[in-house]
Amino acid sequence: MLKLFYSPGSCALASHLALEESGANYEVARIDFGSNDQNKPEYLAVNPKGRVPALVTDRGILTETPAILAYIGQCFPAADLMPLADPFAFAEAQSFNSYLCSTVHVAHAHRGRGHRWAYEESSFEDMRKKVPESVGACFELIEKDLLRGPWVLGDAYSVCDMYLYTVARWLEGDGVDINRFPKVKEVFTRIAERPAIARALEVHFG
Amino acid sequence: MLKLFYSPGSCALASHLALEESGANYEVARIDFGSNDQNKPEYLAVNPKGRVPALVTDRGILTETPAILAYIGQCFPAADLMPLADPFAFAEAQSFNSYLCSTVHVAHAHRGRGHRWAYEESSFEDMRKKVPESVGACFELIEKDLLRGPWVLGDAYSVCDMYLYTVARWLEGDGVDINRFPKVKEVFTRIAERPAIARALEVHFG
Repeated sequence: MLKLFYSPGSCALASHLALEESGANYEVARIDFGSNDQNKPEYLAVNPKGRVPALVTDRGILTETPAILAYIGQCFPAADLMPLADPFAFAEAQSFNSYLCSTVHVAHAHRGRGHRWAYEESSFEDMRKKVPESVGACFELIEKDLLRGPWVLGDAYSVCDMYLYTVARWLEGDGVDINRFPKVKEVFTRIAERPAIARALEVHFG
Repeated sequence: MLKLFYSPGSCALASHLALEESGANYEVARIDFGSNDQNKPEYLAVNPKGRVPALVTDRGILTETPAILAYIGQCFPAADLMPLADPFAFAEAQSFNSYLCSTVHVAHAHRGRGHRWAYEESSFEDMRKKVPESVGACFELIEKDLLRGPWVLGDAYSVCDMYLYTVARWLEGDGVDINRFPKVKEVFTRIAERPAIARALEVHFG
């Protein structure tokens, strides 16, 4: 059985949503960042990066959201969670997820994780100040150039929507008004109405 | 015909190496960061992110290194550039590439691109100071936990090796001694001896 390590509201939510939509038989294990669970020996044995998500499979452990999302998509093709048969369409989905992972999530992380990239409190404060601008610019690009509508990839709902929802949940805390991005807001609003999504959200926030 | 937009020595080198190893019929177009080519209207029409790489295909344009590497792998299966038939092995490759993209490249980028995430010169200087530590920690994790040897994924040479080579080229400038990481150094040394790789390197640095 698959087992997902997550912390509430983290980027692990995207993998959780995909598992719930996939019909997979899975369980979840909560990692409490407040208790620094992610850096305790028992969790570092699961994921030496000390981060979430980590997906335990009968073949081994996977980390990194874009890899986990594609894995879930490929393992449960009947759920139709991403385009699998067409390498170009698959690459477009992967490109979107990679952008969220390497650019959008990174911009957001400068709000609370500045210590990863600098030493001084003054630098952390400066980084926090820039987050509304840098995250806002990312979502302008998503709105204008990446999100086709009604879903990210067009007519087909996919793991990209689940990942976008996960990251867009951080906008308010990042000081960015989602109303600037009508297409993003539409995905954000409609995805939460799906029963599978509501079930996963209940685990994180219920 | 495929066309890759690159700048010399940038992360686009990984996609270039994969194209050269794939046997694809392709051409390259150089983007000169010194002339700010990446932000000129003609290139923003190709890639509105203003970054490299961008791969022009007959179906459209792809960006983001992990997506492009998987696309090349899937389009040229005879070249055996990554595990394609086994979703778990494919996910392991994707996970490695995602880590390079979202964590290692990002740590490195704080040396010269601090303006993406802060406003003050004092913050940029602080970020530059931390790069040897943050990039060094990434390569410790790669050496200890991710790189199986002799190649990244084990016995099979793959796009992961090409991407690792690309990022490891930045170590010296980042103030990190590659000799701390014998397995990384072995990949780094052996990959450059491959004729296909040498041909691509000649285009970047010849």
